[in-house]
Amino acid sequence: MKKLAIGIDIGGINTAFGVVDEEGTLFAESLLSTRQYPLLEDYPRYVADLGRALHALVEGLPFDCEVIGIGIGAPNADDRTGTIAQPVNLWKFREEEPDRDAQRRIFPLAADLSALFGGIEVRMTNDANAAAIGEMVFGNARGMRDFIMVTLGTGLGSGFVANGELICGHDGFAGELGHVIVEPEGRMCGCGRRGCLETYVSATGIRRTAFELLAERTEPSVLRSIAFDDLDAAMLTQAAEAGDPLAREAFRRTGQRLGYALADAVTITSPEAIFLFGGLAKAGRWIFEPTQRYMEERMMYPYRGKVKLLPSGLTGRNAAIPGAAALIWRNRRPNL
Amino acid sequence: MKKLAIGIDIGGINTAFGVVDEEGTLFAESLLSTRQYPLLEDYPRYVADLGRALHALVEGLPFDCEVIGIGIGAPNADDRTGTIAQPVNLWKFREEEPDRDAQRRIFPLAADLSALFGGIEVRMTNDANAAAIGEMVFGNARGMRDFIMVTLGTGLGSGFVANGELICGHDGFAGELGHVIVEPEGRMCGCGRRGCLETYVSATGIRRTAFELLAERTEPSVLRSIAFDDLDAAMLTQAAEAGDPLAREAFRRTGQRLGYALADAVTITSPEAIFLFGGLAKAGRWIFEPTQRYMEERMMYPYRGKVKLLPSGLTGRNAAIPGAAALIWRNRRPNL
Repeated sequence: MKKLAIGIDIGGINTAFGVVDEEGTLFAESLLSTRQYPLLEDYPRYVADLGRALHALVEGLPFDCEVIGIGIGAPNADDRTGTIAQPVNLWKFREEEPDRDAQRRIFPLAADLSALFGGIEVRMTNDANAAAIGEMVFGNARGMRDFIMVTLGTGLGSGFVANGELICGHDGFAGELGHVIVEPEGRMCGCGRRGCLETYVSATGIRRTAFELLAERTEPSVLRSIAFDDLDAAMLTQAAEAGDPLAREAFRRTGQRLGYALADAVTITSPEAIFLFGGLAKAGRWIFEPTQRYMEERMMYPYRGKVKLLPSGLTGRNAAIPGAAALIWRNRRPNL
Repeated sequence: MKKLAIGIDIGGINTAFGVVDEEGTLFAESLLSTRQYPLLEDYPRYVADLGRALHALVEGLPFDCEVIGIGIGAPNADDRTGTIAQPVNLWKFREEEPDRDAQRRIFPLAADLSALFGGIEVRMTNDANAAAIGEMVFGNARGMRDFIMVTLGTGLGSGFVANGELICGHDGFAGELGHVIVEPEGRMCGCGRRGCLETYVSATGIRRTAFELLAERTEPSVLRSIAFDDLDAAMLTQAAEAGDPLAREAFRRTGQRLGYALADAVTITSPEAIFLFGGLAKAGRWIFEPTQRYMEERMMYPYRGKVKLLPSGLTGRNAAIPGAAALIWRNRRPNL
């Protein structure tokens, strides 16, 4: 009977999930709207509905299979406790909630889902770490023992792998490259500080840079007709392709910030490769070329020309699903 | 028969060595002047003399013993090849040397010393990594799986431990925290770039800061009567203790730079503790207090109040010797 692992990618808007075999092939996938469960008291219903949807997905497969485990990528996930602790955008307190004790927002999702699947193994980590494990198990980092995964989405996430192991840190919160400070008096960050890398380098960050350029410069640009809330990384890529000078400059500045930050990160873990993943990475050469150039320019000599900057090998639309499923497969495959 | 490991700490001025038991106790130690062997062609004589001195040290012990291995801390040491590759300050080309092929300056010290001790195990790593291993085996990091060792000497060295393993990177050059760039147009660094952390935070860095302050300010200071080449970290500590305002400000600025850099490093490996080791760390509260304060101020909220800033537990005069010997003991002790 075919063995499959379930992969779940929990975001603030949607929860994407699917079933994945040991080669990383995604056999079926579906979505649940996370936004339909915004409040603390919605969490039990979220778990029940997700469990039901997972069972339906597996039962709908055209062959018999055995689900061997569930891997979850989610913000603030802690694998050691199997919980999601105080996630910023999930299952929040009501505005008028009198008892805002943070301990009430620690969600034991691993145990809750395991119970719905007869006590099955459930592993979880944050989404960038899941992407790193996915890259190692199914993607372009196969065989690598030292690499960095950078996920460029709404924010900038990262997973550092050293000696073939994910660096989780003593509390599970390692790998927050998006929150190194690159501009001490710089842009406001969601973390409450200023000048974090992700305020410059992320889908949101490059949008801020584009609007800074619209203010700073006078060139005509297609960007001048687009509202802040409507602009996304794909539009900027299109504009850059079409020769728009401000879009091109926005990519250059973004790559410069990222390249400089990666040059510093390289001095700490000296990786064989750095992978870029996520929406902004899809801009291709517009983001890779300046990142590579400024990284090389800023790096210390012993590292120059030795660190590969590569696209992720998890290229499907929902690459985060195999990434999460890899949390289960990594310990089951004899060659890993 | 008592089992002992030899620890060797190779610096540009002296080579310190000693014999160390599995508890980290140093039974005998001695020195060889590295400076007496400045040139490429001096290396064979250096090996022979070091081997002779090591045998004499062991034979001079008042009890019978078995030497089980040799651990070496040295600049540019690569444990995988057992070589020291192109060290800046060791066994250099003559000024007039016509054939400056860098490959000629890869020194197979592990094999060479092993041959002098009947094929004994020889392990080597850079001095900061040896200090990290020493801290883990004999010092204040016993039982910790995630910590950072920072050595504050002529430069700033570092060793990062994650998941109980030293991060060496794919090429062995990981852990160069001294070369993250903290001031892009800043001070000239020995690495050929500008603004590296170690140009501000090291025994040499704080001296530069003190002289910057002498230029910038007008307060009287005992430092005004001391030449640049004569000023050392111990004098600055004495001056700070005596209330000298410029010495105190030099420590504050140094701790601020270090604290900010550590806040960024914490986002990558989320360590349980950070250890300060070496000459400048001996300044005690003058360096610890501002470092801790600015690190906390700059850190992202999830890390605040959770990362210990601690003095090294390797407190002897030649703490680097047990550190190097720990490279041998770490794999021999059942509890590690």
